[in-house]
Amino acid sequence: MDNFRHDFNSIAQCGILANGGLTRLALSPPDQEARAYLIKIMREEGLKVHIDAAGNIHGLLEGRNPELAAVAIGSHLDSVPQGGHYDGVIGVLAGIEVARRLKSADLHPLRSLKIVNFSAEESSRFGVATLGSKAITGKITTEELKQITDNEGTSFYTALQQSGCDIDALTHEVIGKDDIYAFLELHIEQGGILERKNIDIGLVTAIAAPSRFDLTLTGRSDHSGNTPMHMRRDALAGAAEVVLAVEDIACNSGVSGVGTVGVLKVEPGAMNVVPGRVHLQIDIRDTSMEAKNHAVAELQRRIELIAQKRNLGISIKMLCNDEPITLDSTLRKRIQHLACTMNITTMEMISGAGHDAMHFAAIAPTALLFIPSIEGISHNINEQSSFEAIAKGIELLYACVQDLTAA
Amino acid sequence: MDNFRHDFNSIAQCGILANGGLTRLALSPPDQEARAYLIKIMREEGLKVHIDAAGNIHGLLEGRNPELAAVAIGSHLDSVPQGGHYDGVIGVLAGIEVARRLKSADLHPLRSLKIVNFSAEESSRFGVATLGSKAITGKITTEELKQITDNEGTSFYTALQQSGCDIDALTHEVIGKDDIYAFLELHIEQGGILERKNIDIGLVTAIAAPSRFDLTLTGRSDHSGNTPMHMRRDALAGAAEVVLAVEDIACNSGVSGVGTVGVLKVEPGAMNVVPGRVHLQIDIRDTSMEAKNHAVAELQRRIELIAQKRNLGISIKMLCNDEPITLDSTLRKRIQHLACTMNITTMEMISGAGHDAMHFAAIAPTALLFIPSIEGISHNINEQSSFEAIAKGIELLYACVQDLTAA
Repeated sequence: MDNFRHDFNSIAQCGILANGGLTRLALSPPDQEARAYLIKIMREEGLKVHIDAAGNIHGLLEGRNPELAAVAIGSHLDSVPQGGHYDGVIGVLAGIEVARRLKSADLHPLRSLKIVNFSAEESSRFGVATLGSKAITGKITTEELKQITDNEGTSFYTALQQSGCDIDALTHEVIGKDDIYAFLELHIEQGGILERKNIDIGLVTAIAAPSRFDLTLTGRSDHSGNTPMHMRRDALAGAAEVVLAVEDIACNSGVSGVGTVGVLKVEPGAMNVVPGRVHLQIDIRDTSMEAKNHAVAELQRRIELIAQKRNLGISIKMLCNDEPITLDSTLRKRIQHLACTMNITTMEMISGAGHDAMHFAAIAPTALLFIPSIEGISHNINEQSSFEAIAKGIELLYACVQDLTAA
Repeated sequence: MDNFRHDFNSIAQCGILANGGLTRLALSPPDQEARAYLIKIMREEGLKVHIDAAGNIHGLLEGRNPELAAVAIGSHLDSVPQGGHYDGVIGVLAGIEVARRLKSADLHPLRSLKIVNFSAEESSRFGVATLGSKAITGKITTEELKQITDNEGTSFYTALQQSGCDIDALTHEVIGKDDIYAFLELHIEQGGILERKNIDIGLVTAIAAPSRFDLTLTGRSDHSGNTPMHMRRDALAGAAEVVLAVEDIACNSGVSGVGTVGVLKVEPGAMNVVPGRVHLQIDIRDTSMEAKNHAVAELQRRIELIAQKRNLGISIKMLCNDEPITLDSTLRKRIQHLACTMNITTMEMISGAGHDAMHFAAIAPTALLFIPSIEGISHNINEQSSFEAIAKGIELLYACVQDLTAA
């Protein structure tokens, strides 16, 4: 694990903050720094590097029969603002560590192994998550990628071009059923269940999918001293009711339902002005499409009531409305069995978070393995997993790869 | 009124936005531009210009007996972000217009007339309102001015130094009872009462005072997908309850009570992260100190309950807790009588907004005159008053000044 630790510490420097946390937004300068480091170590480990049209970085360890579909391990290096060092990074570097072990054990597997770093997994920069894996599995067109922009108006399409990617070649590079034999992703849990139950590895059965919205409430900005309460059209008071409605609806939907307002911006944003406009971003998730649709419809109904009561204008734009994903049970059982022989404890669980793996579920048997997160903290500078826990994940991943690449 | 209109249009260019609105934050480059223009026209009108330690610009029209206390007219040129063109500007330019009329009528009043532009009337940049008038009337020390900073950490003290003001000389320049014979401010109403009642001029009896707070709620930023609702410490959901508590308390206090959350900032502010910290700025006003103290205490009680229920940390900093001001009734009756003889309709009213005039109420008889605001809109790009209404205000102000400077 010495090489793994060294790589982990090196990548941690890319975008590190004074408080120890991390801001490495997709394709930003710190992300480009981390990507360059990954390419360097892929080459050092003898992997053949290819950057695809969507900016995903592939490192190929060629098998004895390169004609056969490859086993792929993938995750991401980008982060949320003020995030932690484990989310995504562990999965990419675990892939590198597996390739390194195969090489140093002088094993020459039948099938090729591919380690992939996916671009823009976090939605923090472009408002849409898992963009790189979505694009390379043919779930989004280049035309759509032109419409997906960051706060400065730069589209994912343009950001890729500026990174030197030939994004217009995307359709020729889309990964299909013939290309991948199995897809594996090792990721931190980002929740507190494994730690509480004292389990080594979570094996994900289903991935909750998000519905996401941009909502703008428009009232009227007025002087905060001279505008009596009954004459106001306060967009922030309306937004406050929306925030509490999102929470209430999520608390009253099924166990896997969650709802979050993570972004709320007030205009003009001065202490002596009644807010005239508020922009919110809302994230609703569930592993049941039906429950999620119900929550979304209920939220829309409540937003309309709030706007009506307060005489506010509403503009809603749905950013995504994804289908929850069920993962391959045969592959999961195989991994469960392997873990059992290795004395690694596992449990089945759902994932509330989306992951790059979900876009491969329809292409190849796909497994998502979780490592315990300390105190369940994630998307936070205090995010952490112990190296002992990570080492167990890598051991299991190594065993899986040996198993899957052998036939 | 041609010169007045020309000056109004010229000052409107300083900080004008593409949408026609205005951002001219205190001592920012657009404000400096407006200040330079004011100095130019003061000199053109033969006024003696002096910039005091707090950056206030004084234009003096010397009376036949310069030893007598002067009549002062003052207001401000700075604006809120995305504000309008009338707030403050009308009062300063009305003063210039009065001086211009005295000169062109070849009148040489006994007492001197002073036109003053006060620095940083709006709290938008430094978080504290009427800084220039507060400082020059000795209500705030230079040490305190060093602690009052903008978002970039620049203090009002430093901003004044950078503008070339000798702020350390403040104590020597403080205006006292011997300096001012009467203080007059003509301002837009920033509310809708005069328009609705079809009255030309509002004569203010009392000025509501604000209590203002910085409030920070600290929860824990977590992954929005993998953190079940019952495990969250969502600072934004807590802040939403505070916003609604401020509204509720203000609606249930007396008629002159208002409460506003104008600033709310979410950290980290990403769609897929449960908000870990929210910073709010709260503004509570009333013309009764007792009612205001009651509202503030009730709000603090509710904030504590919200934080307790949601396991959030609280940090509250009181920015100000000002006393409401009562204005001189003798001067007001004198103006009322003048208006009556000029066929200008007036009504007595309160001011929900603070104004520079309030700091002079303890020094000299002070009058605050309101011009109707169209639809009551203010601190907004659509803020407007008709030039006919402004002209009536200037006529009345001119008559007052003739009256007051004569003896």
